[in-house]
Amino acid sequence: MAIKYPNGVNPARHTPAGNPQLSTTPSTAKRGMTLESELNQSNQYYVTTGQAVIYKKPTPIQLVKVDYPKRSAAVVKEAYFRRPSTTDYNGVYRGKYLDFDAKETQHLTSFPLKNFHKHQIDHFRRCLKQAGICFAIIRFTKLHQTYLYPAALLIKAWDAQANGARKSIPLSTIQQDGFVIPNRLAPPLDYLVAVDQYLATINLGGSHEVK
Amino acid sequence: MAIKYPNGVNPARHTPAGNPQLSTTPSTAKRGMTLESELNQSNQYYVTTGQAVIYKKPTPIQLVKVDYPKRSAAVVKEAYFRRPSTTDYNGVYRGKYLDFDAKETQHLTSFPLKNFHKHQIDHFRRCLKQAGICFAIIRFTKLHQTYLYPAALLIKAWDAQANGARKSIPLSTIQQDGFVIPNRLAPPLDYLVAVDQYLATINLGGSHEVK
Repeated sequence: MAIKYPNGVNPARHTPAGNPQLSTTPSTAKRGMTLESELNQSNQYYVTTGQAVIYKKPTPIQLVKVDYPKRSAAVVKEAYFRRPSTTDYNGVYRGKYLDFDAKETQHLTSFPLKNFHKHQIDHFRRCLKQAGICFAIIRFTKLHQTYLYPAALLIKAWDAQANGARKSIPLSTIQQDGFVIPNRLAPPLDYLVAVDQYLATINLGGSHEVK
Repeated sequence: MAIKYPNGVNPARHTPAGNPQLSTTPSTAKRGMTLESELNQSNQYYVTTGQAVIYKKPTPIQLVKVDYPKRSAAVVKEAYFRRPSTTDYNGVYRGKYLDFDAKETQHLTSFPLKNFHKHQIDHFRRCLKQAGICFAIIRFTKLHQTYLYPAALLIKAWDAQANGARKSIPLSTIQQDGFVIPNRLAPPLDYLVAVDQYLATINLGGSHEVK
């Protein structure tokens, strides 16, 4: 499933569609929307309606050459993609720090752990220690199903894999321990519903913390 | 004080010094360090020591042309700086969402409000409504003094200015209502000390909220 983009960066992420302010209009056929586009529209919806303040972080770029033509905008003439040190999304929701990454898989019965990079897992570990609310948003593209899966459980599977366990998380496990994210008209991906359900389990004493 | 970079973006922010992973070594003379460089080193120190997870967001870039040479990294050939929708820094500290921006001024007796853009102030408003901990880090370069100044007070001054009040915040006000940030060897700018003091005033019932 993992498409090998140079430097691990998907060029499609840099199109205007990746910018909430330039996002596609609501008339765009839902079927063609990427997970990232749906998330950006949802985040914009949440900001506009005052429900949360969450953004996708820009992809870090290493600038090499920048021209400054007179009376017009600076032009980047040579630059390279850098690997981010963090996950892609973070923000604040009702006093909570939210931190997550979004992944799609074409698989039908499990989510391959190789969709995550070690630096993302390490970032989750650090944020969890600071009592952040951390999770993955996992879409099974062919099944049209999207789940919130707590980072603590993802880390558990990641560490088990390093000790020889399976290199993927079964869909059944994600369905059991994760939270369904509903698709709607607005926001297209109402993940705060799943966040609320997840927070409720934590408040009930569910132990998703990582020691 | 406001230097007019194309698109309002300071090209110096894109140098390796702006990347925590490539930041200058501790042997660098402190005197030559910029506020941003000190913050990046401090954030790296906080992440390493497990005290907090805070990063500067990359500057958003609008890609126009990207080459993909075989067997080597993608090269950005044409791109433009975009204006960020948020402040530069955010992250998590002991369960709290922290959000701030850093500004330097050469002024001796006041901080000009024009150092802030409306979109940054609006972002602060939204984050405060979500109970985020929001502030400005303001450095009086010539005085070698740096302060944490609560966003709610900044917003108050900003709104008053729109109604005809003064277009700057007096240093004396910042000294009275803000919190001194100490310069150290490591971290170079120990702003969590000031955050702790600020949080203590909030817990004591100080009303820095914006209605």
